Amino acid sequence: MTQENTVIKERLKKLRKAMSENGIDYYIMPTSDFHNSEYSADFFKVREYFCGFDGSNGTLVVSKNFAGMWTDGRYFIQAENQMKGTGVELFKMLNPGVPTIPEFLFDNMADGETLGFDGRVISTSVGENIENKLSGKFVKYKIDKDLADQVWTDRPKLPLNDMYVLSDELCGKSFKEKLSQVRIKMREYGTTAYLLSKLDDIMWLTNLRGSDVECNPVALSYAYITHDSFVLFVQEKEVTDEVREYCNRQGIELKDYNQLMEFIADVKIDGNVLCDKRNTNFLTYKTLLDKTAEAGVLLKNEKDPTEIMKAVKNDTELKNIREVYLRDSVALTRFIYWVKTNVGKIPMTEYTAAQKLDGMRAALPGFIELSFPTISAYKANAAMAHYEATKDNAAEVKADGMLLVDSGATYMGGTTDVTRTIVVGKISDEIKKHYTATVMGMLNLASSKFMEGCTGRNVDTFARMALWEMGIDYNHGTGHGIGYMLNVHEGPHSIRWRFSEGMQEAVLQPGMIVSDEPGVYIEGSHGIRIENIVEVVEREKNQYGRFLGFEHLTYAPIDLEAIDKQYMQPKDIEKLNNYHKMVFDKVSPFIEDEEILAWLKEATRAI
Amino acid sequence: MTQENTVIKERLKKLRKAMSENGIDYYIMPTSDFHNSEYSADFFKVREYFCGFDGSNGTLVVSKNFAGMWTDGRYFIQAENQMKGTGVELFKMLNPGVPTIPEFLFDNMADGETLGFDGRVISTSVGENIENKLSGKFVKYKIDKDLADQVWTDRPKLPLNDMYVLSDELCGKSFKEKLSQVRIKMREYGTTAYLLSKLDDIMWLTNLRGSDVECNPVALSYAYITHDSFVLFVQEKEVTDEVREYCNRQGIELKDYNQLMEFIADVKIDGNVLCDKRNTNFLTYKTLLDKTAEAGVLLKNEKDPTEIMKAVKNDTELKNIREVYLRDSVALTRFIYWVKTNVGKIPMTEYTAAQKLDGMRAALPGFIELSFPTISAYKANAAMAHYEATKDNAAEVKADGMLLVDSGATYMGGTTDVTRTIVVGKISDEIKKHYTATVMGMLNLASSKFMEGCTGRNVDTFARMALWEMGIDYNHGTGHGIGYMLNVHEGPHSIRWRFSEGMQEAVLQPGMIVSDEPGVYIEGSHGIRIENIVEVVEREKNQYGRFLGFEHLTYAPIDLEAIDKQYMQPKDIEKLNNYHKMVFDKVSPFIEDEEILAWLKEATRAI
Repeated sequence: MTQENTVIKERLKKLRKAMSENGIDYYIMPTSDFHNSEYSADFFKVREYFCGFDGSNGTLVVSKNFAGMWTDGRYFIQAENQMKGTGVELFKMLNPGVPTIPEFLFDNMADGETLGFDGRVISTSVGENIENKLSGKFVKYKIDKDLADQVWTDRPKLPLNDMYVLSDELCGKSFKEKLSQVRIKMREYGTTAYLLSKLDDIMWLTNLRGSDVECNPVALSYAYITHDSFVLFVQEKEVTDEVREYCNRQGIELKDYNQLMEFIADVKIDGNVLCDKRNTNFLTYKTLLDKTAEAGVLLKNEKDPTEIMKAVKNDTELKNIREVYLRDSVALTRFIYWVKTNVGKIPMTEYTAAQKLDGMRAALPGFIELSFPTISAYKANAAMAHYEATKDNAAEVKADGMLLVDSGATYMGGTTDVTRTIVVGKISDEIKKHYTATVMGMLNLASSKFMEGCTGRNVDTFARMALWEMGIDYNHGTGHGIGYMLNVHEGPHSIRWRFSEGMQEAVLQPGMIVSDEPGVYIEGSHGIRIENIVEVVEREKNQYGRFLGFEHLTYAPIDLEAIDKQYMQPKDIEKLNNYHKMVFDKVSPFIEDEEILAWLKEATRAI
Repeated sequence: MTQENTVIKERLKKLRKAMSENGIDYYIMPTSDFHNSEYSADFFKVREYFCGFDGSNGTLVVSKNFAGMWTDGRYFIQAENQMKGTGVELFKMLNPGVPTIPEFLFDNMADGETLGFDGRVISTSVGENIENKLSGKFVKYKIDKDLADQVWTDRPKLPLNDMYVLSDELCGKSFKEKLSQVRIKMREYGTTAYLLSKLDDIMWLTNLRGSDVECNPVALSYAYITHDSFVLFVQEKEVTDEVREYCNRQGIELKDYNQLMEFIADVKIDGNVLCDKRNTNFLTYKTLLDKTAEAGVLLKNEKDPTEIMKAVKNDTELKNIREVYLRDSVALTRFIYWVKTNVGKIPMTEYTAAQKLDGMRAALPGFIELSFPTISAYKANAAMAHYEATKDNAAEVKADGMLLVDSGATYMGGTTDVTRTIVVGKISDEIKKHYTATVMGMLNLASSKFMEGCTGRNVDTFARMALWEMGIDYNHGTGHGIGYMLNVHEGPHSIRWRFSEGMQEAVLQPGMIVSDEPGVYIEGSHGIRIENIVEVVEREKNQYGRFLGFEHLTYAPIDLEAIDKQYMQPKDIEKLNNYHKMVFDKVSPFIEDEEILAWLKEATRAI
């Protein structure tokens, strides 16, 4: 018999009491902060608090007599274990016969019942899906109820960390220049006001930074922009004197982060309002919708114009990024040397290897933080998509097979991301075949030339061709955009191939930077990923139009021990040799140690 | 001083009289039949009748004091010449400052005025664009006025050609099987009736054929489908005894082509109606919209389900197609031999060469008609996208340069399409470079392996890579679908790379056939296009999913005289040699003449 989890049961009991007091029959708790950030702070871990499951994806639904938690295939086992004895039912998403949450609510809610949630942690698309599904029912909504606040007595506070100002020299463009670009777009859309909720876009626009989201140098914030004002909503305690002075000088009016709703209620609206649904939470979007309808103007749902402006890096950003990537590449190169020369000789686990690399990065000038938790995965562990080694649960790295390391950091001057799969011992011919095809894919995309107008969907196949030829695919995108001293994952561009009806694509433009990371994952055996970051550049302009291509930003050796030339055409070999020549030319001036230099020479030799 | 074109002026005068009698202030005449077919019969050449311009694209707008004709860049010079002295103003589409027709109407029509046209020759998207643009104005519409009928006294009749029945054996699937598939889709869409206007889809569904559109074996028709009835609207005089008997047997109720509107007015509607806007003319769509609104049901605008069913060929169709393509390839191979051995020795023009090829096809068993007018273009003429040699205006083909021939036919058992560019004399190194890259592109796409889920946008770049590498592009799609004894151009799939917001894409599926036709066009110098038709096939199915690829349907030599190996990788050479080996193996059994056989052996040799 399963033992009861009385802690969770008690919490759910209190939640149901609060629901009843608030007239709520069904209450939804998803996994998100107010801005749909990649990582949520402890304050937002309401679902975990009420069911015990702490995976990165899950939504809890509670009614008087029912509690169910929806999560995806990565977490079925973990969720089952963590929710034992809680009485919370597990709903295995995408499994046959398992209803979605809107379908479940449709089947179970009675006419006249009330659905409640904190609309700040629900994305507008999710909220609208629920509304659409339930549209035939007479269901009432309470979308501004954060019941956890009433029940969770020792709830952590909202993250609260000092903001800081980046100089115009470092950003290449002042806040005022950026703002005038944004206002031009607002005019093009026929709008006089603009609510921006996307944290990295607000940081980019204001040249401010913060530390409220793990690995993302952003402050919790909103911005409300008109043609003659700029209001920034941030937590007052995060505003240092430097930030306050900067804002005064720039004409940025500061208001408290928690006053956005009151602000919207009171603000005078004299024209259409711009707001990108995709990046705005449901409560904010609905509130603006009501407000604009009341004022007799339109709420224009258009893409945040800041997104593409941020994605196309300016000359200063690019100059700094190139320098930062080179320094980061040198550190990685030293790390590869360290791994290869020490493996089998000193105690080494996935975790300690990651620590070594993290430390080497932290020692670099301008280091701010890791851009994501370093992935260090040995042998078969590298085949698991979401594998995470911890101090207490890490494989020993022995002189056999390979170690995959995916890592990066944010420095003053740029955010990096790179993956290398390092040979540490004997590997099979099959591994060499897979490794060679992965490298060919990475280099084939990086050296491709394509017409302006192409999106990631047109070029993704360049990275996959060699693998598809072998009947192998990797179940992830080939590339994502990367921020400038910002999030390691940013849009609007990406390199992916799959089509879905109504999807959005962004044309690749010079100045964008993007990852190029094909891989091979063989369950129970090995995982390979080779990731360089590349910059989109113009290659040629003629009567046909403009041809674009990529330049490498990452310069670290690719392991020749895993290359099997029989799978390569002369052109493929040439690409690899050219890349390695560049690696040596760029990296060697930073290496003083003769031994490492000799190794690098050998590791980047022409084959 | 320009001489007056009194004929056109007189016609316009009569048109204006008819407009005035019908209370119409502005009248629009586009270029289309009632089904937006690729070619319009003489009956539909109203625009030409009233302005003199006979190009393939143009729209005439007439008011009391104005007449203007809109056409695209291909036709600016021709239109200016043909409309001299008519008083009709030329509007150069897409030129800066030139309004579109909706913009022009918006700027010029006064409140209360009436816009008229024959809504059967206006596509729904064009009609809706006009309505949207004019929505702020108080403009009235008369969308059912074919004024030409009142003015054009010696107007040609509607095409009137006997229909015929294809056997179930030839089609691989009976009408009833297809109909039950369609009815399943109707149910999925929650509809009880379905109006189908797309001619090739109606032919595919009924296993009937006709000859009412040039090069398209289709009869002018509509189909109205319910769960227990099938009404086919065709011209009564086209219905032979065989067709009538077949329809009786199949439960196809025949009604006259011209009675569709009356039928819709009278029909009892007991549920939602399916109708694909894209393929339905504006008058029909609006009439259905009114009818369904009146009946309190929905008009569901969904893709015609027939389109994808028709695109994925069944086993019988594929078997027949393979045979027909081989016979067609043998004819083309003989033609290439004939051109190469006779050029410079006998009189030969682009036109006579095309006639020779057309004659060779006509002599094949089961020949029905050409699938499009053969394109035969010598040297620089091949660089012009819409070049058409005529008897009186054709270049002499000399023993110098190249002849591009794009051609095909419909036979009992399939419709073909193929392009070869034939070396007939000296060619430059630059031409060889371009030719080699074009061939590499064609073979690279044809031999590619890709995951199920790819659309043409993912694989188009395989055909362009080698050219893009050289800074060259071709300004047309790489591939289109092809009908089975039907139109040489059919959807929904295609191979194109360009992205546009909201575009439709179709996933490539085994059984689809598609063209693979990269090219190089250098103005004033030369034009190259190499086109094979390929069949989508399954290559491998494993834990990653299903991998697809292509098999050639076209087997005709690629001119080795224009191949320069220095631009090829070993793998490219292997692909070409493999293809040529297949060509020889497939074609040689059909060649008895020793001389031709010896030539073929040499023309398909490994390099």
